[in-house]
Amino acid sequence: MAKDIDFYFDFSSPYGYIASQLIEPVAARHGRTVRWRPFLIGAVYKATNYQPLEIGAKKDYLFRDIVRHARFHGVPLAMPAGFPEGLIAPARAVYWIADRDGATASAFVTAAYRAYWADGRRLADPEVVADVAAAVGVNRAAVRAALDDPEVKDRLRRETEAAMVRGVFGSPFIFVDDEPFWGSDRLPQVEKWMATGGW
Amino acid sequence: MAKDIDFYFDFSSPYGYIASQLIEPVAARHGRTVRWRPFLIGAVYKATNYQPLEIGAKKDYLFRDIVRHARFHGVPLAMPAGFPEGLIAPARAVYWIADRDGATASAFVTAAYRAYWADGRRLADPEVVADVAAAVGVNRAAVRAALDDPEVKDRLRRETEAAMVRGVFGSPFIFVDDEPFWGSDRLPQVEKWMATGGW
Repeated sequence: MAKDIDFYFDFSSPYGYIASQLIEPVAARHGRTVRWRPFLIGAVYKATNYQPLEIGAKKDYLFRDIVRHARFHGVPLAMPAGFPEGLIAPARAVYWIADRDGATASAFVTAAYRAYWADGRRLADPEVVADVAAAVGVNRAAVRAALDDPEVKDRLRRETEAAMVRGVFGSPFIFVDDEPFWGSDRLPQVEKWMATGGW
Repeated sequence: MAKDIDFYFDFSSPYGYIASQLIEPVAARHGRTVRWRPFLIGAVYKATNYQPLEIGAKKDYLFRDIVRHARFHGVPLAMPAGFPEGLIAPARAVYWIADRDGATASAFVTAAYRAYWADGRRLADPEVVADVAAAVGVNRAAVRAALDDPEVKDRLRRETEAAMVRGVFGSPFIFVDDEPFWGSDRLPQVEKWMATGGW
């Protein structure tokens, strides 16, 4: 039985969003499912002293590329008013939901990403996160309480540290078995790797 | 008549190399030619205080991705012993040759890139640059003398400054008309842009 694909991402990552809307059919074509592994990219950038938007020309380019790249792939995207901002609550929610039901976690990731990147909803707000979770069938009160649970907060910290240990330094970051692929533009290679086992 | 594509690159850029071996058929399918515009990426990184290989995990990943990416596209590549190193002489040669014959400049770029990235030749050495140029039909003594000409040196400095003014911050960096595309993985979008004029 083929293993899952590990999909590391931060909800604040536009390329993570675009890839999240494309990866599941790709995985399904090769009998795989996606294991969603949110992490806090701010913590990674802090640890590596990296600031991707600090170069003016690069920032201008990336804002243009994000919109163009989404349209190229037919993924709806409207630049969120708050971008860039930390989106911690939805990342906490993913692990809590996944521990209870993997399929619902997958539906939540897709819905939460679209809520922020296409529908202009304020995903930094735990109440909005709880609303999005409820819409995919999660018990609203339970998930809302979980977002403030020290255990749930600690889980995300540990997952972020584990991601860094595994070599994750950006979003999206995809492992097929143990082969790492960074960036939404590597999806054709992710697909070929699943089909052929490498080249 | 369609305009040229501007292809900004540094010879020390592996993704510039990979794209350089792929771009000409793409351009030709849309009635375009490639205008090769080498610049000194070290000067750009210095101006923007950027060091792409300073993060350990990212450096490890990129070395792996470079080889895998080349093989994915069928481009021969063997990591050069000197990488990363400044490759200034071949960049100077390109403008000097292009001022005399554009088609020869194109042949030189392809040959020089392969000499370094596939054949293990020491392209930092002006004598090797002159040999590569001679092999594509350039007068060896004339190009060798040009590499030490203050005018030729200044030309590359000015081209690098102009590239930065235009917003170039990495290699390869491709303009289709005035639309910017950064990275070898944007070639499918470059092609669609030429075919459709945008989306």
